[in-house]
Amino acid sequence: MTACLLACGVNPAKSCLFQQSQVPEHAQLGWILSCLTSLPRLRHLPQWKMKSESQKNEGSVGLFTYPVLQAADILLYLSTHVPVGDDQAQHLQLTQDLARIFNYQYGEFFPIPRALMGSSKKIRSLRDPLVKMSKSDPHTLATVRLTDTPDEIVMKFRKAVTDFTSEVTYDPEKRPGVSNMVAIHSAVTGLSPEEVVKQSRGLETAQYKHVVAEAVITKLTPIREEVHRLRGDKGFLREVLTRGTHRARELAAPVYDKVCRIIGLR
Amino acid sequence: MTACLLACGVNPAKSCLFQQSQVPEHAQLGWILSCLTSLPRLRHLPQWKMKSESQKNEGSVGLFTYPVLQAADILLYLSTHVPVGDDQAQHLQLTQDLARIFNYQYGEFFPIPRALMGSSKKIRSLRDPLVKMSKSDPHTLATVRLTDTPDEIVMKFRKAVTDFTSEVTYDPEKRPGVSNMVAIHSAVTGLSPEEVVKQSRGLETAQYKHVVAEAVITKLTPIREEVHRLRGDKGFLREVLTRGTHRARELAAPVYDKVCRIIGLR
Repeated sequence: MTACLLACGVNPAKSCLFQQSQVPEHAQLGWILSCLTSLPRLRHLPQWKMKSESQKNEGSVGLFTYPVLQAADILLYLSTHVPVGDDQAQHLQLTQDLARIFNYQYGEFFPIPRALMGSSKKIRSLRDPLVKMSKSDPHTLATVRLTDTPDEIVMKFRKAVTDFTSEVTYDPEKRPGVSNMVAIHSAVTGLSPEEVVKQSRGLETAQYKHVVAEAVITKLTPIREEVHRLRGDKGFLREVLTRGTHRARELAAPVYDKVCRIIGLR
Repeated sequence: MTACLLACGVNPAKSCLFQQSQVPEHAQLGWILSCLTSLPRLRHLPQWKMKSESQKNEGSVGLFTYPVLQAADILLYLSTHVPVGDDQAQHLQLTQDLARIFNYQYGEFFPIPRALMGSSKKIRSLRDPLVKMSKSDPHTLATVRLTDTPDEIVMKFRKAVTDFTSEVTYDPEKRPGVSNMVAIHSAVTGLSPEEVVKQSRGLETAQYKHVVAEAVITKLTPIREEVHRLRGDKGFLREVLTRGTHRARELAAPVYDKVCRIIGLR
């Protein structure tokens, strides 16, 4: 199970980081929600279709029912807003449906959580600009990691797939590769794609890739250094998780207890 | 979730009765095992096929994945022997397979649990001797309950479906209805079907139904009375469950903790 980040209360800086596997109510609520989910509802989720097609035997039952566990992750904290990417929008819809189904069967209880969509453009694979950049992509050159060294970043951008027009324009439909460079450039500088294109007028694609790589390095260097510093401080990391787990349990236990009483398990 | 009965140690009288929903490790181990289960493996289980066909929308995800939760119920206590009826034999096979898959991937850990098959004949519905007697049968006359009154039992047997030959014989293939009477008679008296048939020579089927009803009443009366007595003593029942839950948690927690360490969640 994955790490979870909860933003608690009105101050978004007050986040709570914990390991989901340390909070048993996730699996428990997941089981209850699975009893409210129909099979075709899961089968039609696009992520399942995509992932199961790429595996022999269609993937595991856990992969299939994972969106229900995600719904439990959200509803267990009576969440009202969930930051999601485009690719998770349908999973959040399942969560909303499950909240509605529960409320309809047992009376108003779960808030219907709303999506907080990020404003930045979708970042695509450096090897295939038609698919999204993903940390589970088997092609190591496809993805820039927060911990990549400057040399690795330069190399990945140098080898990024673009096209044969050596000019910087932003046209995701017709020029997905170069437009992905522009989108990344825009995301790490905070400038709009139009401003970025204007700044880069006259550059050849090869030169532009280097400019983008440098901008990415500038953005990621403090992050990479902080990651390395934190990784060296295991005691602090353990303390953050312990504190987070404690807080998450405090929040989850009464909600799950209430759910059990509502459906008659207690 | 259902009540669980564990037989602990070498003394089978030392059983431990608890509510599964009070022991979070069932749902947690269920989730882990679901990640080791392939979808076709569940789809081919006969109980799922039967139950999902009788419901619109194929039944819920919970019904579909229930055999995985059953596997967790068994493996969580490192069980070695499981009393099962014929209809659960394939679910126990799934449990055995999951134990083997886990052991193969992570090293020897779970014992492979063996089936303890009961010796008594399968009891069939009083309304349709081709299907098993089931407490979830919607036809109230199909099933004798431990708490039925003598009048109810007499009435259910009087209306039991048999055939047009008015003679007591034991031939489950050709005379399923009368043979079901014989099987029930045999089960409640402890006599063999042959002895029961010999005793009943000369009786018409209608008379014989009454004889069986009386034998069932004799067997069930002390049970029914004890059920009523216990139902009146809520304090004692709560104490049994509390003690059982405590003991089950003591047994489950270290096993689940070990599983988490083995697979790297801790």
